[in-house]
Amino acid sequence: MDTVGVQSWEIHRLRQNRLEEAVDDLAVEEPLEIQVEWGPENARKKQSLSITMRTPGADADLALGFLFTEGIIRNPGDVTYINHVPAFPGSPAENNQILVRLHPDVLFAPAKLERHFYTTSSCGVCGKTSLEALHTVSPLQQTEVRTLKTDIPLLLSLPDKLRAVQDTFQSTGGLHGCAFFHTNGDLIASREDVGRHNALDKLIGHCLKAGNDMRESILLLSGRASFELMQKAAMAGVPVVCAVGAPSSLAASVAADFQMALIGFLREDRFNVYHLPSNIEIIHS
Amino acid sequence: MDTVGVQSWEIHRLRQNRLEEAVDDLAVEEPLEIQVEWGPENARKKQSLSITMRTPGADADLALGFLFTEGIIRNPGDVTYINHVPAFPGSPAENNQILVRLHPDVLFAPAKLERHFYTTSSCGVCGKTSLEALHTVSPLQQTEVRTLKTDIPLLLSLPDKLRAVQDTFQSTGGLHGCAFFHTNGDLIASREDVGRHNALDKLIGHCLKAGNDMRESILLLSGRASFELMQKAAMAGVPVVCAVGAPSSLAASVAADFQMALIGFLREDRFNVYHLPSNIEIIHS
Repeated sequence: MDTVGVQSWEIHRLRQNRLEEAVDDLAVEEPLEIQVEWGPENARKKQSLSITMRTPGADADLALGFLFTEGIIRNPGDVTYINHVPAFPGSPAENNQILVRLHPDVLFAPAKLERHFYTTSSCGVCGKTSLEALHTVSPLQQTEVRTLKTDIPLLLSLPDKLRAVQDTFQSTGGLHGCAFFHTNGDLIASREDVGRHNALDKLIGHCLKAGNDMRESILLLSGRASFELMQKAAMAGVPVVCAVGAPSSLAASVAADFQMALIGFLREDRFNVYHLPSNIEIIHS
Repeated sequence: MDTVGVQSWEIHRLRQNRLEEAVDDLAVEEPLEIQVEWGPENARKKQSLSITMRTPGADADLALGFLFTEGIIRNPGDVTYINHVPAFPGSPAENNQILVRLHPDVLFAPAKLERHFYTTSSCGVCGKTSLEALHTVSPLQQTEVRTLKTDIPLLLSLPDKLRAVQDTFQSTGGLHGCAFFHTNGDLIASREDVGRHNALDKLIGHCLKAGNDMRESILLLSGRASFELMQKAAMAGVPVVCAVGAPSSLAASVAADFQMALIGFLREDRFNVYHLPSNIEIIHS
């Protein structure tokens, strides 16, 4: 495998209780829209079928595999053409749409398969960037610059605090967890789910009802930080996101664009800082 | 947190090179459909908005958080009612649909938000079970019972073989990997992606093109085994699925129903067998 799926990012790395400059490789995350053209030769139709956040590369295989595992094609001969759709001039999205032409004999009834589905309006496939769209819809986005201080020992203590309340994870190993903490390190609430986006939606839904101000809280994710999770955190106005795992390229971009602190690989005595806005400070004691 | 999200499952556990009977707790995975009712009082409308695979529990928080992070509501007062829709008689799906009523003053334009989205026809929300639906659409499902033998050292060797080719993962820590192996342990192909379902679609798409017979192969997943991944493996006729992480309840159900071997927590000198059909044998040497 080559390394097309990697983007370099300037970070600060905690080593032996000191933050030093470094460069980290992030897994690239970008949207791909799969479009399908089908029908008899005199009546071809075209439709967008799916949008997924993927690492660019092998997109034709991805489209082929998706159509097969969804039962739309039965073998590669059912497809006569697969290729990226050229981006329109000025679009920031390159190679984020792929067109699959089905053989005229393939029976395809999208109405039978389609469900009432929905995705974020900020996926960035079609020219308008993800981040622009996010700015327009967040009711909780920070309207004033608040100063926020946290410290290294406090951040390092958070994963153990989440694990302590993550009962189901301990018994099954199969759940993603997330938690909000006050800036003094006290736990506000935590939630678990097989789907990481569901765990975060449950947590945010709870805090909305309880009236917790997420704009003064630290969010901890038990796994990796993806665009989807950062988008939800941005919608809730969260100033600091910490992840036990790696962030994706798009997660780091959301942090930079929304002026959120993003900390990854938070484990035992180390972490990486992917973005730190000037109003947020990490102190040593 | 309580343990409503757990289901017991009889397994065989490898300890000191012996398979012994045991019981394991699986994280429960089930679909939830979020329906929204909106509009002025004399012209209410209702629509299904999203289907997600989640762990049951806190479903109202999940729906509230989802509507908020998608920008549909701005505060809890925008919602006048949230509750599960009663399952119709005979339906196997309990509490898998939730209805959210929006306040008449909330402006909601699904046409603006909706995309051409699509999900598997086998999600099991609406009565017809997931597994029934899968049986009807898989072109590669095993039509004859093939005997397949594998052995403990071979299975234990697979994660290192995947890691050896997983270049991007090693540099970023941010990608899911998966690989097909011949039953002699030789690698067929591997793929990586920020999305685990994308990694598997890329792998299956590649094997379809290359003409690899996935019905005689062992699939290894670098993370957990979810319904979505097992559904794709079942569509490809894969007889043995191994995961470095935990399977969900629905993943184990797919394995049992499709007579696929499912092995989880495959790490160093141990693994758990969640299902082993009678035509597949794990020998010791």
